[in-house]
Amino acid sequence: MKKFAVIVAGGSGSRMKTDIPKQFLLLNGKPVLYYTINTFLQAYDDLHIILVLPEEYVAAGQEIVDAFFDYTRLQITVGGRTRFHSVQNGLQLINDESIVFVHDAVRCMVSVDLIKRCYDAAMENGSAIPVIDSKDSVRLITDDTNKALERSTVKQVQTPQTFHSKIILPAYQIDYKDKFTDEATVVEAFGLKVKLVEGEENNFKITRPVDLIIAEHVLPTN
Amino acid sequence: MKKFAVIVAGGSGSRMKTDIPKQFLLLNGKPVLYYTINTFLQAYDDLHIILVLPEEYVAAGQEIVDAFFDYTRLQITVGGRTRFHSVQNGLQLINDESIVFVHDAVRCMVSVDLIKRCYDAAMENGSAIPVIDSKDSVRLITDDTNKALERSTVKQVQTPQTFHSKIILPAYQIDYKDKFTDEATVVEAFGLKVKLVEGEENNFKITRPVDLIIAEHVLPTN
Repeated sequence: MKKFAVIVAGGSGSRMKTDIPKQFLLLNGKPVLYYTINTFLQAYDDLHIILVLPEEYVAAGQEIVDAFFDYTRLQITVGGRTRFHSVQNGLQLINDESIVFVHDAVRCMVSVDLIKRCYDAAMENGSAIPVIDSKDSVRLITDDTNKALERSTVKQVQTPQTFHSKIILPAYQIDYKDKFTDEATVVEAFGLKVKLVEGEENNFKITRPVDLIIAEHVLPTN
Repeated sequence: MKKFAVIVAGGSGSRMKTDIPKQFLLLNGKPVLYYTINTFLQAYDDLHIILVLPEEYVAAGQEIVDAFFDYTRLQITVGGRTRFHSVQNGLQLINDESIVFVHDAVRCMVSVDLIKRCYDAAMENGSAIPVIDSKDSVRLITDDTNKALERSTVKQVQTPQTFHSKIILPAYQIDYKDKFTDEATVVEAFGLKVKLVEGEENNFKITRPVDLIIAEHVLPTN
């Protein structure tokens, strides 16, 4: 089965107190985005990457690709107004029957193991959404009150959200709605259930300066 | 109003791959527990601490107290079978009308600001439970499926869970149930609502080796 990874890089780095988007910050001397791309390329020899970047950062992304990677397995396209539109732009480059990973560029600690687990589950079930347990107790806010939820029933959702092309390509023909916070919600709006798989605690998003420090200590030396 | 902080330290350090419970691990040369106690003592001059430790670690806790603190504002008592029983043991030492903080010993990054915010809210509402937003999308698992929850409606619960003594002392007369995962759930079983207040991203639990590294970078130098 063919394999595509749509790697989505968002906008500004406001939470990092820097003008550089998080995916371009350096981690052990290489951009965050390098690690994300590299792990996907290592996972499968026949995997192709579609890197979706805000228009103003296409040139910066191109530099990373030129510096580190074999360009034959990578293409760059321009993102849209929201994550939904960015993913939609990326998916337009896929015509083949395939397994499609959609991944946050700033989850640079993703492992080959997790990618393969998602692939296997998506082959079997049509979809695979990695999730982890909350470490804290959780509460649900309702209109006028709040209540404890059983912690084991609440999962934190990660990426790569992984789908058979027969599911995700038609699902993304839908009109945008605000509730589309990730790919799973789009596929559900298309009328399908999603399959959850075990995520990884280290597969977190780089959103704060301290996350880079954590990542430096968690990254395997390679 | 009098103030008591019941600081609860749990059992073994299995997730840390060490036999030393997490609250005794060193952070910038001092035990994790030192920072937790120190911040509460700094928050209010008239605050008293009740430190609840597993029986086998009372001596180790006593050493920390002797080394760093004025003993007149601190007492140690022995924990129980579960967190509920440990908190119950600690509360038995409180007879005065007061505001009672119940805090995880391993949340050593708690700030004076957060403690004061909880105090003020508990004075006004009878309770104050610090919560933060989830950074990831969240899903709720039900018997046969799973569904996306609106992220803004799901909160991660921290400590200090803070109550007026008139609420928490009678609430803890209740018989133990497995669903009592924190103090808020006990107070709710007693028939009361709890008030949520804004927690802090840095007020996390030290549960993994990397958490110590994060804490070293986040701790204010003092």
